[in-house]
Amino acid sequence: VEPSELVAYPYPAYVLYETLAEGHGARFSAVPFGRDFALPQALFGCDAKLVFVTTPNSPSGTAYEKSELRRLAESLPRGLLVIDEAYVEFAGDDALSLAAELPNVLVTRTLSKSQSLAGMRVGLLFGSTELVRGIAKIKDSYNLDRLAIAAGAAALRDPEWTRRNVERIVRTRSRLAQALADLGMEVLPSRANFVFARLADAKTAKRAYLHLKERGILVRYFEKPLLDDGLRITVGTDAEIDALLGELSDFSRQKS
Amino acid sequence: VEPSELVAYPYPAYVLYETLAEGHGARFSAVPFGRDFALPQALFGCDAKLVFVTTPNSPSGTAYEKSELRRLAESLPRGLLVIDEAYVEFAGDDALSLAAELPNVLVTRTLSKSQSLAGMRVGLLFGSTELVRGIAKIKDSYNLDRLAIAAGAAALRDPEWTRRNVERIVRTRSRLAQALADLGMEVLPSRANFVFARLADAKTAKRAYLHLKERGILVRYFEKPLLDDGLRITVGTDAEIDALLGELSDFSRQKS
Repeated sequence: VEPSELVAYPYPAYVLYETLAEGHGARFSAVPFGRDFALPQALFGCDAKLVFVTTPNSPSGTAYEKSELRRLAESLPRGLLVIDEAYVEFAGDDALSLAAELPNVLVTRTLSKSQSLAGMRVGLLFGSTELVRGIAKIKDSYNLDRLAIAAGAAALRDPEWTRRNVERIVRTRSRLAQALADLGMEVLPSRANFVFARLADAKTAKRAYLHLKERGILVRYFEKPLLDDGLRITVGTDAEIDALLGELSDFSRQKS
Repeated sequence: VEPSELVAYPYPAYVLYETLAEGHGARFSAVPFGRDFALPQALFGCDAKLVFVTTPNSPSGTAYEKSELRRLAESLPRGLLVIDEAYVEFAGDDALSLAAELPNVLVTRTLSKSQSLAGMRVGLLFGSTELVRGIAKIKDSYNLDRLAIAAGAAALRDPEWTRRNVERIVRTRSRLAQALADLGMEVLPSRANFVFARLADAKTAKRAYLHLKERGILVRYFEKPLLDDGLRITVGTDAEIDALLGELSDFSRQKS
């Protein structure tokens, strides 16, 4: 993206899109989601040079169908669609084939989530030969060290480990989502390794966040429109989830 | 550096300066060294926004005095001087204090050479708080993974290991330089972990390079002005240096 060109993405999503667009002097347009986190119609046909869609999205956990992403890519008159599939292994479905089918689609992934290699900072990018060659030209040299390359290669050679890890997390996610709903929270349908659950209002959500924090349980609270009445809860081990649910249950009993 | 601004450096030096300047759309000026690799006078007072000086330089091995680098930095009307000290531990002297003294000096180092951690891709940068804050703003997030950080921190905590490693290399470098001179080669005064040695002419240098390569000994041969009559030989173990000297001795006997 040249300086002054437009980068667009639905908002709220991954915060680094904005930071990186700013660092490159690009203009950016954060197109607001509605409360259901459906893909905003304003993205379709927009004039941006670069559109980012995270699917499953963070912090909502909502995912977008391949057919809809294809329609978005095809609607962009001069833009590239980057489909950020950081959490895709938890979604049960993906849009990787669009990177091969469409000349203006890039798909990015990471080993930080389903492969549990966050500390190694290894990512993957898929796209047409032409796009990938262009990106390779401006890529930093030596952007991965030898141990990260070894760890990344080993993880990719062991899809079975990833499958078991994902299965465990998806199972715990179901239990967590059901239990939060039983506590009266509105739980967005999650396709990621976290759930976004809404409380009565922003004040209650912030109090719940602080209640958990004081007891050593860290969840994400975002003091932003559309997010400030909810908590993003990462799917942990069964014991961690039990501890969380116990404290949230205490919290809701204290309120009433 | 904004696109179209000027980046200057003496030539030949580290090849990535040019590649990176190109990638950012900057103009660049490679100011040619003379045969003695003294700092080119044309750099002093030049209009560049960014000047790179590698000291000790590669592939020449020649180093520049702090007083001269200070004079260069002070001569730049609007430019930043980046002093690349990748090989500095082998030089016996450094210019690090200029990063604290002068507002337009940055000093960069790496753990790839004297700490033997090339595979970890860890570098260091020193400069005024203001400069470093500016750079931190546009630095990639997550540019080092956890293992690289751990390895880098451990290496920096063990200067004694580095000192012994450097002493060994500097000792072998003296022996290598003397032996190459005894074989009739012109050896530039090296302050790095390699020596640059000139043969009779470019044809001889290339033949010597191929002679060594065929025997499994890899040295660097640069088919470029000012370099094409020489070889850059990295200081290896004593056994490696003995093997190299034996083959070079055979080579010069074959010639005569």
